[in-house]
Amino acid sequence: MGKKNVTFDDIAKYTNFSKTTISRYFNNPDSLTLENQQIIAQALEALNYKENKVARILANGKTEFVGIIIPDLYMHYYAQMLSEILATYEKFGYKFLVFEGNKDKDIERQYIQELLAYKIEGLIVLSHTIASKELASYNIPIVTIEREDQFTCSVNTDNYMGAVQATSLLCRNNCDILFHLNQKVSETTPGYERIRGFLDTCQEHSRPHRLILDSFGKTYRENEKRLREIFEELEADYKGKKKGIFVSNDTHANILLNLIVRRYGALPEEYRIVGFDDSPIAGSAIIPISTVGQQIGTIAFQAMELLVAQMNERKKRRPVPLKEPIHQVVTPVLIRRETTD
Amino acid sequence: MGKKNVTFDDIAKYTNFSKTTISRYFNNPDSLTLENQQIIAQALEALNYKENKVARILANGKTEFVGIIIPDLYMHYYAQMLSEILATYEKFGYKFLVFEGNKDKDIERQYIQELLAYKIEGLIVLSHTIASKELASYNIPIVTIEREDQFTCSVNTDNYMGAVQATSLLCRNNCDILFHLNQKVSETTPGYERIRGFLDTCQEHSRPHRLILDSFGKTYRENEKRLREIFEELEADYKGKKKGIFVSNDTHANILLNLIVRRYGALPEEYRIVGFDDSPIAGSAIIPISTVGQQIGTIAFQAMELLVAQMNERKKRRPVPLKEPIHQVVTPVLIRRETTD
Repeated sequence: MGKKNVTFDDIAKYTNFSKTTISRYFNNPDSLTLENQQIIAQALEALNYKENKVARILANGKTEFVGIIIPDLYMHYYAQMLSEILATYEKFGYKFLVFEGNKDKDIERQYIQELLAYKIEGLIVLSHTIASKELASYNIPIVTIEREDQFTCSVNTDNYMGAVQATSLLCRNNCDILFHLNQKVSETTPGYERIRGFLDTCQEHSRPHRLILDSFGKTYRENEKRLREIFEELEADYKGKKKGIFVSNDTHANILLNLIVRRYGALPEEYRIVGFDDSPIAGSAIIPISTVGQQIGTIAFQAMELLVAQMNERKKRRPVPLKEPIHQVVTPVLIRRETTD
Repeated sequence: MGKKNVTFDDIAKYTNFSKTTISRYFNNPDSLTLENQQIIAQALEALNYKENKVARILANGKTEFVGIIIPDLYMHYYAQMLSEILATYEKFGYKFLVFEGNKDKDIERQYIQELLAYKIEGLIVLSHTIASKELASYNIPIVTIEREDQFTCSVNTDNYMGAVQATSLLCRNNCDILFHLNQKVSETTPGYERIRGFLDTCQEHSRPHRLILDSFGKTYRENEKRLREIFEELEADYKGKKKGIFVSNDTHANILLNLIVRRYGALPEEYRIVGFDDSPIAGSAIIPISTVGQQIGTIAFQAMELLVAQMNERKKRRPVPLKEPIHQVVTPVLIRRETTD
């Protein structure tokens, strides 16, 4: 601090170039010869010119900022995804402006407008609030993860494959009847593929099955209340049958497991459970829960690669925009623990 | 898109001022009369001058960026704290550049240097990597949360009070002997106050007690292995005694609880447990865990208020720096669930 900033005047005097030339070096370096660029670069070093990235942004438009809109950080899945995206700083150098959305469409829009005014280079969207059509209209590189993605590039887990893995395991465990617990998801979201995968696998194995779609509520207490009702229903209606339950997330699988273990002191043979996500709760539950593990690190990295490719294209003299959005899927991994045979 | 940007030339022509005057309006508005400032402002509106925040930053130095350095997002405590800090956008309008630190000191330093080059206005630090003395030397407004804070402003939970609450509850539960499980924390970190609070309360109630300080490891598997050894020790050495265990975080309290319930099918009268943090795991454990709840929303908000006050001070013509760092504490709340009487 206290050190005087080096001005264009100082650099001009040192190099014997005009101030206009110095200004061109920052704003349009290609208009100078390579030799003159080098002379100025050396002068900057000699004068101990303090980098001011804000000035550089004005010069070349590269802010190296990427915006992330995440729905919440309560679900461990999102916290881990955010963590993996942030970790790409070491590889790509992009800095992340993070916003928690999914609450209020207008505030999310206002935030995105602010980010655009700050000249972010790209956007990663996990919240479900704004339709992909509107996102695409912002006209900057965007990649979405696990949400409706008709008009945006995206990286998603292969949800269909995950559901097939989970349901097949329950079939191999000789369950008499199969259940799938899930939110009421729209057919346009990637998560809907879990329902399709479950139904197709049950049909393929000619196994009796039932789909339980519900909203479950927003708090732990609401979730537990609803799952307790479902548990009582299973107890009353399917007594003596071996029930294979594929739950769409580990948080709910854990609540259901606790309800069963509290009643029986253990997990009876009559219940087999598979979750989804491989959240920490799955491994640290009272009985470690079998689950479909999403490769979150891979998804985050591929999303960033896809975004960087688009951002780099923008910097070319004649950028070629994508004709169609690119959709990538990442295969999940079945993790067998103690809630299945 | 496609609309031509308004240039300084356009503004100069419209107002009949020189380009130098227009430039001064953006870079040093106080050098113009108020009247001329108004003429130019009106011209910008008439010309539909598109806001470019990057240009405005150059003009007034207010980026509205705040950096956050968070250790990890695996511990639910940090994910929730980050969530609460991000939520202050609606109140204060600051945008957050988020970095996950605590892994590598050099990368964290490099990141902070980048943030400084981008002219962030302030920094919130939760990682433990860089000493507060070094942080203070960066000479920008900083607030730290739950870490060593000798030279920085900070907001922390009243950890001493939390430990007194937890330990007193175990005393009232008529435990024969009290235990406190904690990391090996340095005496300069706020977390050390939990150890002091435990020891003081045991002495005050003349209760036999034992401190179990350990590193526990970094993964669930390592944590569980170490806690299993501790559990076997308690079983062997304190059979028949009513054991009151104050665990320094809910994650470990839950692992210990699961070990006990797996052995006994329930939590025997002989074990009473209190955790810390009120993480979601505490409420959704096989037996809901009594815990000391940190008021994370309050801590996040106070940290931001403290930071905003410093950032606003900086914008004054004659800023008065703080003579001493300000340290605020937030009282925790004892939450009684089913692992205590």
